[in-house]
Formats: sequence, C-alpha cells, structure tokens
Amino acid sequence: MAPDWIKEIRRDNLSGAAELAKRAARGLAEWAPGRARDEIVAVLRALIAAQPRMAPMLHLAAAVLAKPGEAAAACEEYIARLEAAAQAVAERAATLVEEGDVVATHSRSSSVLAALRYAWAQGKRFSVYLTESRPMAEGVRLAGELAAAGIAVKLFVDAGLSLIVSEARVVLVGADAITGDGVINKIGTWPLALAARERAVPVYALASTDKFVPSDYELPAELPRDPAEVYASPPAGVWVVNYYFEATPLDLFHAVVTELGSMAPEDVRGRLGALRLPVELRG
Amino acid sequence: MAPDWIKEIRRDNLSGAAELAKRAARGLAEWAPGRARDEIVAVLRALIAAQPRMAPMLHLAAAVLAKPGEAAAACEEYIARLEAAAQAVAERAATLVEEGDVVATHSRSSSVLAALRYAWAQGKRFSVYLTESRPMAEGVRLAGELAAAGIAVKLFVDAGLSLIVSEARVVLVGADAITGDGVINKIGTWPLALAARERAVPVYALASTDKFVPSDYELPAELPRDPAEVYASPPAGVWVVNYYFEATPLDLFHAVVTELGSMAPEDVRGRLGALRLPVELRG
Repeated sequence: MAPDWIKEIRRDNLSGAAELAKRAARGLAEWAPGRARDEIVAVLRALIAAQPRMAPMLHLAAAVLAKPGEAAAACEEYIARLEAAAQAVAERAATLVEEGDVVATHSRSSSVLAALRYAWAQGKRFSVYLTESRPMAEGVRLAGELAAAGIAVKLFVDAGLSLIVSEARVVLVGADAITGDGVINKIGTWPLALAARERAVPVYALASTDKFVPSDYELPAELPRDPAEVYASPPAGVWVVNYYFEATPLDLFHAVVTELGSMAPEDVRGRLGALRLPVELRG
Repeated sequence: MAPDWIKEIRRDNLSGAAELAKRAARGLAEWAPGRARDEIVAVLRALIAAQPRMAPMLHLAAAVLAKPGEAAAACEEYIARLEAAAQAVAERAATLVEEGDVVATHSRSSSVLAALRYAWAQGKRFSVYLTESRPMAEGVRLAGELAAAGIAVKLFVDAGLSLIVSEARVVLVGADAITGDGVINKIGTWPLALAARERAVPVYALASTDKFVPSDYELPAELPRDPAEVYASPPAGVWVVNYYFEATPLDLFHAVVTELGSMAPEDVRGRLGALRLPVELRG
C-alpha cells in the first residue's frame, strides 16, 4: 500500500537520517496534495515505520500533520528548516575548535565534518584524531574527507582511545538520535566518552533538535546486523555479534550543540520531556 | 658479538614474553657453561636489550647472574619456575570463573586461555565475550582456540565494549608487563577496564611475578608499528598511527592474579617497589 518512495526509504541502510528525511519530504510534497487527511496520516505512519529509529522522520510527520491541507508547503519548510539547522549547528560547533587544537571524533558524522570544514575555512589550523569505526569503517571515510579539505588527520584503530584522548583538547561526535537514554550514535562512542571523562577532555554531541526523540515515542531496539560485515569466515564455532549503535548517557557530554544553542544535559532532558508526538502518529 | 640465538630473539616480534624467555634460557644453558662472569654479564645485557620491554628476560638474567658458575642449572630452574607459575596462575584464575558466567576478555593472553581451559575441564559451563583486537586480530585467534575447546564464544568489534560489559560478570586479561604505570597489555585494555568499572564488573590481570618490572628498570617506550598493518592504502593525506600496547592503571583492577596469590593494587605496588635489578644489568 505504501508509495514506492517509502519502500525505497525503508530499504536504504546507508543514508543518514537527515538525508532520508529530506528525501521523504520531497516524496510527500509531490504525493500529498489533494489527499484526504486519513490517507496522509496512514502514509506518515508508514514513513515512521519505514525507518523507526530516525528521529527526523517523526518531526517531518508532525510538521505535515500540523497542516495536512498544505503538505507541500510544510515539506518545503521542513527541508529549509533542516538545512538551516545543520548550518547553524556547524557554525556553533566550529566555535568550539581553537587554533592548534587536537580534535577527536569517532566514526563519521556529517555535522562534525561540516563544523570542522567551517572552522578550517575560518583560518583555524588544528588536527583531527579519529578511529576507524569497524566494521563499516566510516571513520576512514571521514579521515579521507578531512584530509581532502587540507586538515591534518591521524587515524587509529578503535581500541586506540588512550592515544586519542591523551592528546585531544575536545571531542566532537554526531548523533543519530537523542533520547532519554542518551545520545544514540555509532558503537564506540560510549567508551570514547568514558575515556575523555577520565582525561578531563570535554565531549560535545552535534545534533539539530530534529534528532530529539519525543518522550512518548519509544525508539525500537536495533536489530542485529550481518555478522559477515565483521568477519566473512570467523573461526569455527565463533558467534560474531554486530550492532552499529549504542546510547551514551547525556551526563557524559558537556553539551549538545543544537541550532538553538548549546544545551547542557539537564536542558536536553527538559526539552525531551516536553516533546510530544501527535496522537495520530503514535504506536 | 651477540650469539645467534640472541639475534633471533631480537628479531622475533610474534612470540610472547614467556616463550621468548624460555628460548633464551635454553640458549643460555647451552652457551654459558665455562664462560667468564664478565662475558656472561655482557650477554645477559645484550639479551635484555634484544627485547627491552619483556620483563621475564630481566628475571632470567637476574637468576643466571645470581649463580654464574651454575648457569645451566639456573636456566633449567628458571624454566621450571616459569612453567609452574603459569600453571598456578591458570588454576587460581579458574576459581574466578563460575558456572553460567559471561567472562569478558580482550586480545589474546595465553594465561587467560589456560585459565579458561582449566575452568572448562573442571566442568564449569560459561561463555566468553571478546574483542577482535585490531590490527593483528589476536582476539579472533583466541576466539577460535576457545571455540575449539568447546567454549561458547561471542566475538565483537573493538568498539563494542558496551555490549560486552553489560553482560559480563568478570573481566580477565593478560599482561605483557606490570610496572608502576600499571598493567602493560594490548591496546584497548584501558577502555575495557574503564567500561567495566562503569558497569561494576571486576577486572583481573593474570600475570606471574616474572612480569613484574623492577622499580629501578625503566621500560623503554614502544616504537610505533607499521601503519600498513592497520591500512595498507589509507586515504590520501591520512596518517595512520599503530601501537600495540598501553598501560592501564593498577587501580582499575580488582587484583593481579599471580602464582603467589591474588594481589590487590597496593600489594602489587609494594612488591614492585621492593624489586631491584642487579646493578651490573642496569642501564
């Protein structure tokens, strides 16, 4: 029953949440005009179910449901808001980077990449230490993107946190979602945050408020990933376990950098507690 | 000037410290009889310099120097002591494993392997969660060895510490050396110990006292390893950093399991402080 563009969004395991939300907004803007409210609600629910762990879909659905008769305009506004928020987060996070810094990160966040490019374009000269992020090696990809921008980059194995936080002045990571359980991000973020706390290095998550999950929406558990991504031929009898994401408690972060400002953990909790998903989109 | 067996020990970057110390003891037992004390001292110093980060070499050299006229007997005694100590550590550490446990470890330690095999042979049924230990994947090798012994094994990427310590009842790791800086072991041990502390899971290092480094011997810094072991073709401009070892502070361990008993961190520090290298072997 779901339109084809929703099926494509469901199948996409590579694109980030913001990118998929933008694609969904474009799909909705074309599909929704002239449809009945009930039909729109059904498709918004299908959209959320297609990527049930991507918070921006919830915000897009809520924005469309607020003006179902003007869905196309609501979608355009949502895309513009998402892009403006991303730019604001990058600019604000860039102020955390100072001349001569070692900045640490883990895996690959488009927000972190944008912030570091912005800081570099401002003339700040710094270096980035980062981890490979097995099994998909997103950190290696980010390392290449940063190096292509002229930034000095040192790449470490994921176990090499001591080498990273002993040199870093600040840790910047992205976020796939922000919930009462903490910052949902690539696995390895929690040990990095623990190591940074041990060395008194402040940790910031970069996330527009589109990543905030309403307190009445339960983010479903991540399903296990393909073990062959870790080892195609593990030793006989060995069970390989592969998950991409984990929750890092908010209190391990100095702040979450959003388009509305840097929010301390207690402010994030307050905002999450006040966020509600429209009743028709729940469950 | 150094005998060929010392050159071979210098070149060996794969064997563990106990194995190389035994090989050195066999070499000395054959070479030393009839030699002058000065000549023996020179070769013992060359032996320490060949693998300057391997504590058992220091103890072997001290044992031979204590009875230079009976070097062959001293070497045989040292080998016997090393083997008895390893067996005692395995038996003692096996008592830390209980029926139904999830035991966590990192990389590959022959002491941990021996302890887990011993516990399994006693009829205890447990499972082991462990990390791959990039770049050399010693954890994958250990996973295969444990599985071959019939033990249930789950293997995770090095970043997956949250998945490991949230299930583990106890963490057992090996040690390459024990110094005032802490337990020297494969990189990734420190974040594992931090994660375990966060989840209130006790961590034990398994090490005979041959791994204890006398307080007047300065373990030289590890030289950087071949970056190509991490990535043969990293992205252009990316500097890959590769080290194998790190120091994890003693206070992150519940105890160090030795052949003399389980030693709390303060007892380990006391013993290290009392250990001295014979003056002729220093510097």
